Amino acid sequence: MGEMKVTPWEVIGDIDYGKLVEEFGLSEISPELKAKLKKYLGDNLFIRRGIFAFHRDLDFVMNEYEKGNKFYLYTGRGPSGHTHMGHLIPWIFTKQLQDAFKAKLLFQLTDDEKFLFRPELTLEDVEKFSKENLLDIIAVGFDPKLTEAFTDIGYAKTLYREAIRVAKHITFSTAKAVFGYDNESNIGKIFFTSVQAVPAFLESVRRGKNVPCLIPHAVDQDAHFRVARDVLPKLGYYKPASIQCKFVPGLGRGGKMSASEPATTIFTTDDSKTIEKKIKSSFTGGRETTEEQKKKGGQPGICPIYMYYEFLFEPDDKKLAERKGACKGGKLMCGECKLQLVPRVQKFFEEHQKKREQARKVVDKFLKAD
Amino acid sequence: MGEMKVTPWEVIGDIDYGKLVEEFGLSEISPELKAKLKKYLGDNLFIRRGIFAFHRDLDFVMNEYEKGNKFYLYTGRGPSGHTHMGHLIPWIFTKQLQDAFKAKLLFQLTDDEKFLFRPELTLEDVEKFSKENLLDIIAVGFDPKLTEAFTDIGYAKTLYREAIRVAKHITFSTAKAVFGYDNESNIGKIFFTSVQAVPAFLESVRRGKNVPCLIPHAVDQDAHFRVARDVLPKLGYYKPASIQCKFVPGLGRGGKMSASEPATTIFTTDDSKTIEKKIKSSFTGGRETTEEQKKKGGQPGICPIYMYYEFLFEPDDKKLAERKGACKGGKLMCGECKLQLVPRVQKFFEEHQKKREQARKVVDKFLKAD
Repeated sequence: MGEMKVTPWEVIGDIDYGKLVEEFGLSEISPELKAKLKKYLGDNLFIRRGIFAFHRDLDFVMNEYEKGNKFYLYTGRGPSGHTHMGHLIPWIFTKQLQDAFKAKLLFQLTDDEKFLFRPELTLEDVEKFSKENLLDIIAVGFDPKLTEAFTDIGYAKTLYREAIRVAKHITFSTAKAVFGYDNESNIGKIFFTSVQAVPAFLESVRRGKNVPCLIPHAVDQDAHFRVARDVLPKLGYYKPASIQCKFVPGLGRGGKMSASEPATTIFTTDDSKTIEKKIKSSFTGGRETTEEQKKKGGQPGICPIYMYYEFLFEPDDKKLAERKGACKGGKLMCGECKLQLVPRVQKFFEEHQKKREQARKVVDKFLKAD
Repeated sequence: MGEMKVTPWEVIGDIDYGKLVEEFGLSEISPELKAKLKKYLGDNLFIRRGIFAFHRDLDFVMNEYEKGNKFYLYTGRGPSGHTHMGHLIPWIFTKQLQDAFKAKLLFQLTDDEKFLFRPELTLEDVEKFSKENLLDIIAVGFDPKLTEAFTDIGYAKTLYREAIRVAKHITFSTAKAVFGYDNESNIGKIFFTSVQAVPAFLESVRRGKNVPCLIPHAVDQDAHFRVARDVLPKLGYYKPASIQCKFVPGLGRGGKMSASEPATTIFTTDDSKTIEKKIKSSFTGGRETTEEQKKKGGQPGICPIYMYYEFLFEPDDKKLAERKGACKGGKLMCGECKLQLVPRVQKFFEEHQKKREQARKVVDKFLKAD
């Protein structure tokens, strides 16, 4: 694997989270903060297992909450392709937050971003993906009374007015340093982070008073919110807080699951046969030969199959630990471990797909446009 | 006077139009083209006197018109302050074009631009100026059935979707070279030209077929449309054509009339006393002493008072020539020439102000928002 690179548009290499925490200046979720979250979220798998492991100002948001100053949630999706398993994990956690805190959620579909950053995508493409992706978002089970989804293009009248307030405080120097733009970057890309900043204070604009905002997202999006956290206080708003998760790996090695590599990605619309085929072809932490694996044991730390159990498909900590032990002890071979995963993933997506179809009827309850 | 500088945001120095034509790559309106315009516009003062003197592709637009392919008009206003006399001249000509060609007009109020480029202006400021400016626009007499005015912020849903199509084809290099941006420019400024490009092809988007667009504007806005002319063919649209006018000078020396220098600016809401006072205090092409002026004559070429006669207040060519002769021959002193101008300007603005008040009732007929 090559060197790690983590930007909002590219995640490659073996991920060293310690290094990311240091580089980005994130905080790890402390035992005290975990205990406080547990009061509301219960014994949450994503917190307990350190999948949502990092944050900015989560302590502030929780303190405000306990003083009666409720926060709202903001998360998003770049509609550059079909939804896959990697997207669902932060969304599932976001739903758990919504339920636990009865929090309003703004869900941004950044169709403009994907159009501007992907040379091959047309407006029609990103608008089509937005509609498709929205079905998956709804299928996760967000509360329609507490959730507003919108696309940047469809909600541009509201967003543009606020985005230029942000843009006025961001120089090209800053955008260049944070996002790596150069002279050949198109001017839409350069402007874009202003639009991604808006939902982080939009509720404060609407309500005419400061409302704390908590953004659950994967670590790669941090760059946008680092900039937003610099600018928003200049406009009189709170810095947005965040709770950040690790990447869901693809079925290949390193990086994160990505729609641009369909062979190593489980899409939400994959049928049971496809799921089986993909899992069976997956990279694992196994050894070259069965003998070697029996002797040295497998390596769950680099194994996507193990991580899927950890992230979603083995909620029982004891059983997960047993699986890990069996793997490392050379007792559980990869083929068997994959075969045990297949029906769990199939069942999960069969259910998701049912909810996804039902979602078509309630799109209007979620989608906001101006 | 210092060196000439002409950008969309700054016009200073003594203007050398020959140099601008060469630098920008404009065409002068040829005698043949003047003759063709005359068929429709009549013996138009602004054409005849070379006030609208430059163009891009006006010949193309006229040829298409004569083949039955009608063009539409697009012009605009940056609402950074109150409207003044300098704004009205291109608008009056635009109305004459609208009447002669029965042309649809899109009138863009670039509130976003002024907010982004002027550190001291708030959104509330530019939105207030947009409303005020719109009254002056309507007062010029545009046909409500053929005219759509909009502010960039108020019409952002329509504009943003198209602006990002433009932005995708403009690099920071280009924006830097054309507009002089640097690393400290804010990212909203950098993006802005994409928004100004949209009305130049919006009718083609709406009608689903290519419609020629003619943009009457002052020479300083050319930079935006040079960029738009590069990009629009890449999106499948015509290059926008333009017809460009010289600057209306302020009552000081050089540059153009500017709201940021109120003492040398006649605002559309100035009362008769203020108008008289400002004109009497104006810079002229006169000499240091009466004796010297009688001997050497005045210099109408650098005199704003003479130019106001030429641009608007002396429609009779013979009388204008007599005035010029008397000035150059040392027979007409500046004080007298100013006194003769005062009642004409007062009358013009008294009438304008009446129409401006009536405009309040019909704002809804003109203003488009989404």
